[in-house]
This record gives sequence, structure tokens and C-alpha cells, in this order.
Amino acid sequence: MKTLRDIGEDALIARLIRLAPCDAAPAAGPGDDCAVVDPGPASGILELLKTDALVAGVHFLPDSPAREVGWKAAARVVSDFAAMGGRPERFLVTLALPPDTPISWAEDLYRGIGDCLKTHHAVLAGGETSGVPQGSSAVVSIAATGSVRREHLILRSTAKPGHALLVTGTLGGSLAGKHLNFNPRIKEANWLVSKFKPTAMMDLSDGLAKDLPRLAEASGCGFVLDRAALPLTAGCSIEQALGDGEDFELLFAIEPARVTALLAAWSGEFPNLALSEIGRLVETGQGETLHGGWDHFG
Amino acid sequence: MKTLRDIGEDALIARLIRLAPCDAAPAAGPGDDCAVVDPGPASGILELLKTDALVAGVHFLPDSPAREVGWKAAARVVSDFAAMGGRPERFLVTLALPPDTPISWAEDLYRGIGDCLKTHHAVLAGGETSGVPQGSSAVVSIAATGSVRREHLILRSTAKPGHALLVTGTLGGSLAGKHLNFNPRIKEANWLVSKFKPTAMMDLSDGLAKDLPRLAEASGCGFVLDRAALPLTAGCSIEQALGDGEDFELLFAIEPARVTALLAAWSGEFPNLALSEIGRLVETGQGETLHGGWDHFG
Repeated sequence: MKTLRDIGEDALIARLIRLAPCDAAPAAGPGDDCAVVDPGPASGILELLKTDALVAGVHFLPDSPAREVGWKAAARVVSDFAAMGGRPERFLVTLALPPDTPISWAEDLYRGIGDCLKTHHAVLAGGETSGVPQGSSAVVSIAATGSVRREHLILRSTAKPGHALLVTGTLGGSLAGKHLNFNPRIKEANWLVSKFKPTAMMDLSDGLAKDLPRLAEASGCGFVLDRAALPLTAGCSIEQALGDGEDFELLFAIEPARVTALLAAWSGEFPNLALSEIGRLVETGQGETLHGGWDHFG
Repeated sequence: MKTLRDIGEDALIARLIRLAPCDAAPAAGPGDDCAVVDPGPASGILELLKTDALVAGVHFLPDSPAREVGWKAAARVVSDFAAMGGRPERFLVTLALPPDTPISWAEDLYRGIGDCLKTHHAVLAGGETSGVPQGSSAVVSIAATGSVRREHLILRSTAKPGHALLVTGTLGGSLAGKHLNFNPRIKEANWLVSKFKPTAMMDLSDGLAKDLPRLAEASGCGFVLDRAALPLTAGCSIEQALGDGEDFELLFAIEPARVTALLAAWSGEFPNLALSEIGRLVETGQGETLHGGWDHFG
């Protein structure tokens, strides 16, 4: 019998979404960083919906500090709102925990979630707690609503061949610590959409090798990557930059004629965060392929 | 070190919600069936938010039919929207599954979710999949948005001493099958709020023994229960009706002078579903106490 390990995450999702009713004309297709709800043309604001989960033994270790795990659980969701050009608003937190979990662990987890919500001016709206059988992994599932100004919304699917590809920060080596205490690029994303709106954007959660092909495919493009231009985290190889995952940086496309002005304005606005041109989109069927990156069922 | 088992679910939630920022003036306090978002006095519609989770080995067995598990996962959330007087709209589905899960199991689960969404005119807006370590329990976490007309919103906290307590359907014995294939009482709840609006309402998920004290406490009341009036599922004892849980019936309070007219109208509208008066609310500190019902960390 075929199992999830045999087909991987993207193929699984493609099979599942056919099996339930969806919006007839969604503002963003399934597979973008957030779902987009359009309340109608009279509204200048679109609603964003997102769900994400952390699993003990997969996204964090049993001895990871609970407060950092909580920060990460919320910050991953904030990063997805950033990727759409929006902001987070209300969070729902579902904890599925073994009964022998120390109360202090759950409290520290919530403190970390609270740290992230305060930083990003969001609030806790509700939650759910459930036991899991003793010995099972803890699961922290977070759903949230957010919003984006209609003219600021960015999808993955709207770039064109020839557009330049850029990435914020440095890539690789997240397991050394960044995966727990990263800062979602919401300030940077909000600046981008108002000053140099990209033609497509996403956040890097599963590694450039997995995520860049997703952005290119969503836009109906191929891509070429300038490996020598990849911004490597200190001590990391190109392979790590491509495959480690959990960078939580922004990957975006922009018209090539705007790159020079963007880079100049960026370094004035964010002098401590790199912005690197790493390749370009090409016609679909051309360019290269990438393998690797994180697959949840691999 | 104290663990979740030592304090139980309600005490845990009370401790956790103090640790994260919440809405300054929420339309419904934490602990109601859904969170309520008020877009402002100009809007006649309030937004509802809900999250819920099913865990293998806790809420369903490994050999439970996956399609029924999917129905249950979505129907539990629909039941919470019913309890607020509202309707479900958009669903986010998070699956945390072991890599050796058969693809067909995940597909059947989604078919069951789809069945429930179609029945209740809701749509799938997004989702997330993650692996869990081999041997860990599967977790199905569902978040959803819904809506309620402002004048139809019902909370748990707005009943008064002297109000009659009523319950739909029969209680107890859900493990024999009803817990997997129940029909959320959304039609009944929508009729109630427009014809005989209760003063407080909730859905019964953890058993009357656990849930009735929650409704009474939220309203600042005590309660007395007429055990002889409890509508027992065929073959069930009073203890089972109080403690089995997962009845997914509506428990509500209403002014005593309206009970006779309500019961007459109900039997005309819903001839195949019992509606039973089972007690009344009293001043806080008076009445009785109940023990038992479902606790996730017991």
C-alpha cells in the first residue's frame, strides 16, 4: 500500500485539495503562503488565513527551550503573512500534549507565543488543548487571521520570465539556532510592497531547493540560479544554503530594471540585512532543476 | 514537577490565557465555544473563529473509518458555530501524520471533511501537512471562520438564575458510533436563535457533567439538575448520560415562561429530535455540583 513517504508533501496536498469543496474563485489559489478572502470590491482590505504546525522531534527537540518553541510556532505564521505583504491579527493556538508534560513547559510555550504576538501587535483569540497518548509527540498547531491592503497583496503566481530573483538575509545553518529565534521579515516585506512591490513573493521555510521551484512553477516559469551569488550563513556550504530549510527569509521576483534602485534603497533602509540577487525566472521548460530541501514525509 | 495530568484542561487553559496578549474588549471571553470578532457597530455580521483537534487513540481509533474521522473533525467545529447561533464558512485543515500513513487514509479523511463542508455550505480555504515521528499519534487540527448575525449571537455567559435548562436529542453512549457520524445541530440552533432565542447556549462535547457547570459558571450561576428528566440514549444509564461525552447536542438556558411555547413549536418543527427540560439555573453558590465527564489530561 502506498504511503505518504512514497509521494511526499506537495503531491499529497495536490491530491487532497481535490477532495473537498473550495472557493469557486479564490483570491489566491491553494498552495500560496496564506489563503486570501476578498470581502468584495468595496473593501480596500483583504483577509488572510493561515495554519501551521510544529511537531516535537521534527520541528523542535524535546530539550528545546519551550519559550523559543512558542516564539517559533507563532513567528512561522507571521512570516507567512509577511510573504503576502500583510500583517497578522488574531491567533488560535491548539496544543496536543502528552499528559506528563510539565505545566511549566506549556506555560513557557505560551510565553513565547505571547512574546511574538506582542512584537507583531497581534492577539490571542482562542485555543484548544487535547491530550495525546503517552509517548506520542507534542503538536503545536497555530491558525491565524491577518489582513493586507488590496494593492499590497503579493502572490507566488504573478511573476514573469525575465524577472530577477532576490533573497533577504543569509541561507543555511538554521539548526544552529536561527530556526528557533528568527525574526519574521514583516517590516521588510511591508516596506517592499509599498516602495518596490515585487511581482511574486514567498517565505523560505523548506529550503531554497524546495521553495524556489514552487515559486517558479506557481508563476508558470522556469528559473536559473547563480550559485556563486547565494548569501551563505557563515560556515555554511552552498548545499546547506539550498537544503537546510527554515531560513524564514523572503524570496521574491522583481522587474530587472528596478533591481539597482531597490538595492540602493534597501541598504539605506535595512543596513544590517543583506539583500542578494540570486538568479532569474525564465520561460517554463527552460532553466534548471533543483533537488533536496525539506519534505515532511521523506 | 507538576504535569498537565495534575491540573486538568480547564485549569491549564485558565493559566495559559494570562500569558499572551488578548483583545482588550472581546465580544466573547476566552472559554466560549468560538471567539467572536466585532468589525464595528456598522456591521450587522460578527466573525466567528474556532480551532479544534482530533488525536488518534484519543478521539478516534486507528481502525476507525477515515472518512468518518474526517466528518467528525469538521462536524465538531460546525457544532461550535451552531452553539454561537452562527454558521461555518472557511476551513483550514492541519494534518500531522506518521510517514507510513497510507495515502488512501489521508484521502478518505479529506473526503469525510469534504462531505461535512458540502452539507454545511462551507469551503476549504487552506491547510498544512507535517510528518510526526513514526509511532506517534496522528493529529487532525481544524480551524475555521464563521459568521453570525449580531442579534443572533449567543454566549455561555448571559443566562440568569431561574432560567430553565434544556437539551436536544439524547445523551450517553456516543462511543457506540454517534461520536463519529453525528449531525451538528446547526439547523436547530439557527431556528432557536431566530424564534426562541436562548439566554445562553453551548454544545455538549465533554459530557453534561463537565459542560453544564461550565455554562453555569460562565453565567455566574449555580444549577440544579433533574436527573429523572435526562433524555437517555437507549441502553444508557444516567451516569453515561452525564459522563460519556461527545454528545454534540445543544445545551441552553431560556426564560421559564417561554418553555411551554418552545416545546410545542419545537415538536412541530423537529418531530424527530427530542427537546428536554433538565433543570434550571440558580444563584451562584446554591444548587449542586457534578463530577466526571471528559478531561483530556485525566
